[in-house]
Amino acid sequence: MPGPDENVHPEATGEAKKLVDAHQDAQDLVFYSGWFCPFNQRVWMALEERKIPYQYREVNPYKKEAAFLKLNPLGLVPTIEVGQGSGKGLYESDVLVEFLEDLVPPSDDHPSIYPSGTYEKSWARLNVQHITKKIIPVSPPTGTHTYLVLPCLHAASDGRKTDIAPRRAQHYFSLQMRQDASGQASAREDLYTGLRTLLECKASGGPYFFGKQWTVVDMSLAPFVRRFYNLEKFRAFKDSEVGNGWEEYKAALLSRESLKATSSLDEYYTELLARYLNNTATSEVAKATRGGHHLP
Amino acid sequence: MPGPDENVHPEATGEAKKLVDAHQDAQDLVFYSGWFCPFNQRVWMALEERKIPYQYREVNPYKKEAAFLKLNPLGLVPTIEVGQGSGKGLYESDVLVEFLEDLVPPSDDHPSIYPSGTYEKSWARLNVQHITKKIIPVSPPTGTHTYLVLPCLHAASDGRKTDIAPRRAQHYFSLQMRQDASGQASAREDLYTGLRTLLECKASGGPYFFGKQWTVVDMSLAPFVRRFYNLEKFRAFKDSEVGNGWEEYKAALLSRESLKATSSLDEYYTELLARYLNNTATSEVAKATRGGHHLP
Repeated sequence: MPGPDENVHPEATGEAKKLVDAHQDAQDLVFYSGWFCPFNQRVWMALEERKIPYQYREVNPYKKEAAFLKLNPLGLVPTIEVGQGSGKGLYESDVLVEFLEDLVPPSDDHPSIYPSGTYEKSWARLNVQHITKKIIPVSPPTGTHTYLVLPCLHAASDGRKTDIAPRRAQHYFSLQMRQDASGQASAREDLYTGLRTLLECKASGGPYFFGKQWTVVDMSLAPFVRRFYNLEKFRAFKDSEVGNGWEEYKAALLSRESLKATSSLDEYYTELLARYLNNTATSEVAKATRGGHHLP
Repeated sequence: MPGPDENVHPEATGEAKKLVDAHQDAQDLVFYSGWFCPFNQRVWMALEERKIPYQYREVNPYKKEAAFLKLNPLGLVPTIEVGQGSGKGLYESDVLVEFLEDLVPPSDDHPSIYPSGTYEKSWARLNVQHITKKIIPVSPPTGTHTYLVLPCLHAASDGRKTDIAPRRAQHYFSLQMRQDASGQASAREDLYTGLRTLLECKASGGPYFFGKQWTVVDMSLAPFVRRFYNLEKFRAFKDSEVGNGWEEYKAALLSRESLKATSSLDEYYTELLARYLNNTATSEVAKATRGGHHLP
């Protein structure tokens, strides 16, 4: 029986589609991607920021090819094949981002996405963890504290076990489907707090977390911030409630070229989110959103 | 009101105590440690393996000093101060292990704990993630799938929020306190499966995960394996059920000098675990264990 996500749009749209089309030629690095997934977008941005040649392949989460599953038995995007046809796969977005940093020495042609000092590099990693644990709760400790922005869709149609993905989706489902105002208010406060704490650690003297240099900290957050317009529309998220310079920082993230170039059109992210907002009124939400109307 | 953990033994014992005593002099690096915590032991082993000078400070989880809380507002061990009195703190065991690798270039005097190739280094990180997610489930997706070996004790007596730690303890509590045989059997199978999967990826031609070189993969697992004797005694864990060369690999891990040097006496780990095995019969379990008896 088809699940509610089975008809997810099969490919990137907008700017992201142009980038996909420009990356069809064979390269040493093959990027197995899902256009819809914000974790996946982190890796895509890292490829762009570090200017590393790659071949783009969209993975249909409901028809995973054998070659892909051989690279990553979990069947998850993002996955990178290191050496075309080598069968050497790497996955997990944080592992991949570190890999892309290690792959080519930093230079003007290949800008680093980490600060250069040893302490600062670790400080960057620690703040990426803060983002993953406190701002994008993927595996929250309880069902009451999360506000996952968009799920990654990884359910397999071939009966394979995809045991990381359903976990994400499970939390997302259980939380997005909560329609009670107090649960939503509490989740919203957690999100504000996570953002505020990050901003307290942000350097002054530049638009980004480390000041003038764009780093992995900005990159880990940006794909989620790109989808915040859905939270504004459906979950009463307000930029003005965050404080600590959030609105300036948000603008800096959203204007980053690598984010824009890897982003699909708003309505397709919203359509995807709508499937989770209300398991009974999916198509209504999608229609209203596409038409620019508010929901009744 | 004192919690059940408030009387945890205040310092390392056995070999670990000797190591603590040998690391009391002031050094640039200050290691804020908890003798009981297996995540903490990873970092301690990394300091030893990489032969990096450090000053050891035991943190009393119920009387955290202001200087420590300034370094790590979460109040968790392990924490490292980078530069004595600098106020620059780093934490999270995986961040710290990467930091210690980056701090000093690999040499005969300071052996690397990562394989040297770019792909292989990422492959190591991926397997560390496997260990953290599939063998030591700290934040499992549901209450039915975990087998956490020992909790880290981080409850604060001063009213500060320690929001990572209670999460760990919470899962541990809920699962260890399950006394039903089927829940335990299912958790045990998950642990066997996690270990088997790791062993399927292990290189041949040497005792360690990467063959002859000891790396972060072995180091991430070893402190937990060091405590498996408790699972054998109280949870019917059997080495012979794992297969895939587990018994040889386990022996290689347990004979590693850095593991032995950072380990306390068995009875103190057991006493700590006993607090979680049964919230009503704590002292009986501890007594029986210390006396070498089986529980009734």
